[in-house]
Amino acid sequence: MVSLKGKDILHGNQFSKREIDAILKVASGFERELKRRDSLTLLKGKILATLFFEPSTRTRLSFEAAMQRLGGGVISMGSVESSSVAKGETLTDTVRTVSQYADVIVIRHPRIGSAREAADAASVPVINAGDGAGQHPTQAILDVYTIRKELGSLRDLTVSLVGDLKYGRTVHALVELLSLFGARLYLVSPVQLRMPEAITSNLKSKGIEVVETEDLMEAASASDLLYMTRIQKERFEDLSEYERLKGSFIINEAFLKRLNRKVAILHPLPRVDEISQEVDSYPGAAYFRQVKNGIFVRMALLAMILGKA
Amino acid sequence: MVSLKGKDILHGNQFSKREIDAILKVASGFERELKRRDSLTLLKGKILATLFFEPSTRTRLSFEAAMQRLGGGVISMGSVESSSVAKGETLTDTVRTVSQYADVIVIRHPRIGSAREAADAASVPVINAGDGAGQHPTQAILDVYTIRKELGSLRDLTVSLVGDLKYGRTVHALVELLSLFGARLYLVSPVQLRMPEAITSNLKSKGIEVVETEDLMEAASASDLLYMTRIQKERFEDLSEYERLKGSFIINEAFLKRLNRKVAILHPLPRVDEISQEVDSYPGAAYFRQVKNGIFVRMALLAMILGKA
Amino acid sequence: MVSLKGKDILHGNQFSKREIDAILKVASGFERELKRRDSLTLLKGKILATLFFEPSTRTRLSFEAAMQRLGGGVISMGSVESSSVAKGETLTDTVRTVSQYADVIVIRHPRIGSAREAADAASVPVINAGDGAGQHPTQAILDVYTIRKELGSLRDLTVSLVGDLKYGRTVHALVELLSLFGARLYLVSPVQLRMPEAITSNLKSKGIEVVETEDLMEAASASDLLYMTRIQKERFEDLSEYERLKGSFIINEAFLKRLNRKVAILHPLPRVDEISQEVDSYPGAAYFRQVKNGIFVRMALLAMILGKA
Repeated sequence: MVSLKGKDILHGNQFSKREIDAILKVASGFERELKRRDSLTLLKGKILATLFFEPSTRTRLSFEAAMQRLGGGVISMGSVESSSVAKGETLTDTVRTVSQYADVIVIRHPRIGSAREAADAASVPVINAGDGAGQHPTQAILDVYTIRKELGSLRDLTVSLVGDLKYGRTVHALVELLSLFGARLYLVSPVQLRMPEAITSNLKSKGIEVVETEDLMEAASASDLLYMTRIQKERFEDLSEYERLKGSFIINEAFLKRLNRKVAILHPLPRVDEISQEVDSYPGAAYFRQVKNGIFVRMALLAMILGKA
Repeated sequence: MVSLKGKDILHGNQFSKREIDAILKVASGFERELKRRDSLTLLKGKILATLFFEPSTRTRLSFEAAMQRLGGGVISMGSVESSSVAKGETLTDTVRTVSQYADVIVIRHPRIGSAREAADAASVPVINAGDGAGQHPTQAILDVYTIRKELGSLRDLTVSLVGDLKYGRTVHALVELLSLFGARLYLVSPVQLRMPEAITSNLKSKGIEVVETEDLMEAASASDLLYMTRIQKERFEDLSEYERLKGSFIINEAFLKRLNRKVAILHPLPRVDEISQEVDSYPGAAYFRQVKNGIFVRMALLAMILGKA
Repeated sequence: MVSLKGKDILHGNQFSKREIDAILKVASGFERELKRRDSLTLLKGKILATLFFEPSTRTRLSFEAAMQRLGGGVISMGSVESSSVAKGETLTDTVRTVSQYADVIVIRHPRIGSAREAADAASVPVINAGDGAGQHPTQAILDVYTIRKELGSLRDLTVSLVGDLKYGRTVHALVELLSLFGARLYLVSPVQLRMPEAITSNLKSKGIEVVETEDLMEAASASDLLYMTRIQKERFEDLSEYERLKGSFIINEAFLKRLNRKVAILHPLPRVDEISQEVDSYPGAAYFRQVKNGIFVRMALLAMILGKA
C-alpha cells in the first residue's frame, strides 16, 4: 500500500511510479465525487496555512480551493510586507510558528532549497509550491494528470517541451515524472535557454530518447503533446535577440493550420503571448482544463499527506 | 417564477421590477432566518472568489461574510501586487483561471466594462462589485432594500440624491431601480457634478419627475429620503471652488434642526464629511443599517444565481 | 459564575484572578479536546473579523486558526493600502461598518487607546491585539497559561523579565497578571529601557517584590522563568551604545552552561538574536509551545465572549 501520510512534497523526483499512480487515482476519485456533490468533509477541522513569499494567484487559490472542497479551513500569511517577516524573522522561525497553527503548510519562496529548509523546521508536512528556479512538484503532478486525461495514457508518449527550458522549474520536474513512464522528448528552445546538461544526460541514462531543436514545427509534427512555457524577456542581455527569437516559439491559428494534425497543448500559465487567444477554442487546447485538474491533484495530495485518503 | 440561476449581475438596469421584488423577498427571508440562528448551510461546499483590483473594505468583506453566513467558502485574490496580474496576465485569463476554482466570482476593477468582459470569459456567474465610474448593482439593490425597510414601501417616493451625481456609479444604478417604482427625484449637486444628461432624459422619458437644484434645504423639505454621496476633491480643477461648494452639501445637527421634519438618510459609505458624526444618533440616520442590509441582499443574490433560493 | 459574554478584551488589568482562572480552565479544556479531534463546532456560523493596521503574522493567524478550530468563519481586512482606510475613513466608521458583518472583531492598531475607541464604536465585542506601545492582553493571558503549564503553578514564582521593559507592551500586561498570583520580579534591562516607574511602584504597592538590575546571570540564578523580549535598535540614539548593550541580554548555550540550573524560557516572538537558535532544543525553551498555547487561549476567549463556553 502506498502511503504519503506525514510526508513532505518537495521535489519532482521524490516519487516512485507507484506513488504517482496512487496520487493520480485518488485525484481521479475526487474529480468524480465533485461531479456528484459540491464538497467533501474528509478534512473537516484540518487547517492549511499558505505562506507565499512571492506573487501568485493560481497556485495559492488552487490550494485554498482544494482544501475547502475537502471541508478544511485555510489561514494565509498575506503579503510579506504585512507579516512578521518585515521584522526580520528567519524563515525557520516563521515556519516553526505556523506549524503550531496549521496541520499542513504550503510554501512559495524565491530561494532554491527554501522548501527543504522549511520542511526541516516544520512539525507538520510541508508542500513546496515553488522555490525559485528550483522545483514546483505539484504542478508537475497536475501536468501528468492532465496528460493522462487528454491522451488516455502516460506510456511512451512523444512530448515537446517548448520555451524556457533552462530556468523553467515546471519542465524540470515534469521530465522527471515523464521519464518514469518512458517517453520521447523534443526539447524546443533558443540555444540560450536549453535544458541544463545535467538533466538531459540523466534522462538519456534512463533510456529516454531526447532531441534538442529550435524547430517547433518539426517537433510538433512528431508529438502527441506540446508543453509550452513563457520565454522571459529579462533572460536576454540582447533585447533584439529576444525579439528575433520569441516569434519562433509561438502557437497561433496559422501554426496549427500548417501543422494539420491534432495535438494536445498544455501551459502552466500565466501565458504572455506564447499561445494566441485564438487558439483557446482549439479542441486540443487543454491549459484551462489543466488549471481545473490542479484542484483534484492538490485535493489528493492534501488528503494523502494528512492520512485521510 | 423568477430565476436568476446561472446569471451574471452586471448592471442596475438588467432587472425587471418582478426580479427586484423577488430579490428583496429572498433577502428579507434571510434577514429573518439569521435572527433565529447564526448561519445557514444553503451554500455548503460552494466557493466564492473575490477579485478586487481596487481598494475596498466594505464590499469585499460584505460578500465574504454573506457567503460564509450561507455556509460557503471564500478564496480571495488579495492585492494586485501579490498576484499573477503582476506578471502581465490579461483580465480574461485571470478570470478563466479563477472560474476553474470557484462557483461564483465577485469582481471590482477600475475599467468601465471590465465586469462584462470578465463575465464573457468566465464559466461561472460573475457579480460586478464596481467597474470604475460604471456600475455597482448590488449596492443599488441593497439601497432599495434599505429604502423599503426604512420607509415601508418603494412606491412613489420623493428622493433627494445629493453630492457627486456625475461620477457616482452608485446613484446611476440607484435611479434605474427607483424608476421602476415611480419616484420624484431631486438631483442636488454642484453644476460641475450634475447627473449626466443621458440619464436624466431617460428618466423623464419613463415619466419620472426630475428637479435639478443646488439647494439642499429646498430638496430635503420635500423629500422622504436623502441619499448622500461624497464629493471628491480631485474632481475640481479649482480647489477654492471645491472649498466654497462642499459646505452646501453637508448634513449636520444644525441642518436637521432647521429642516424640522423626519427624513431617512442613506450613504453608500465611506463618508468623509458629508454627514457629521453628530447625525449618527438621529433616528433617520440609516447608513449603518444600510451596511448590514448589504449582507442580506448579497446572501440573496449569491443563493439565487447559484440556484439555491 | 464567571461570564465574559459580550465583553471586550482591552487591557491586561481588566481581569480578576477568578476570571483569569476561568479563562485558563476553558483553554485547558479546549487543549484536551483538540487532542481527541481536529476541531469543534461551538462557534459554527459565527464570524470573526480581523482588522490589522500593522504587520503581524502570528497574532492574526493565531486568532484565525482559533476561530476555525471552533468551527467559525473569518473575514480579514487585509493590508491598510487595499482597504477603505486609504479613502480617509475614520477608525470609528470602519469599526461600525465591520460590526455589521461580524460577531467579534480583533484589532491591532499603532495608536495607544485605539482599541478602546474601536470598542466604543462597535456593536459587537472587540479584542485588542495590540494598540501601539499600549496593551496586548491576549498575549499576556497565553503567557500565564504557558507559565502554569511549564512550571505547574502560578503561585509565588520568581520571574525575570528581560530586555526592553520600557516600550514592551507584552511585559506591561504580563506583570499585571503575575501580580494577581504573588511573584518576585527581576526587571533586567538597560537603564534606557527600564520599566516605567508608574508600573513598578504600582507593583510594589501590591506587595510584589521587585529587583531592577542589568545583570542577567544574577537574575537568572534566582529565577524559575526568564521572559525574554527584543531590544529594538531604533530605541537608541547612540548606536554604539546599542551594540555594547545588546550582548548583555542574550541567551545562548554558553550562558545556559554557566547558569547550570533548569529554567523556563519564554519569548513573545519574533526574536532577532536575544535567544540563539542553539537554545531551541534546551528542555526549558518553551517559546514555540507558547505559540501553540495561543490557540487554546484565544479559543477560550472567543468562545467566552460569544457566550458559548
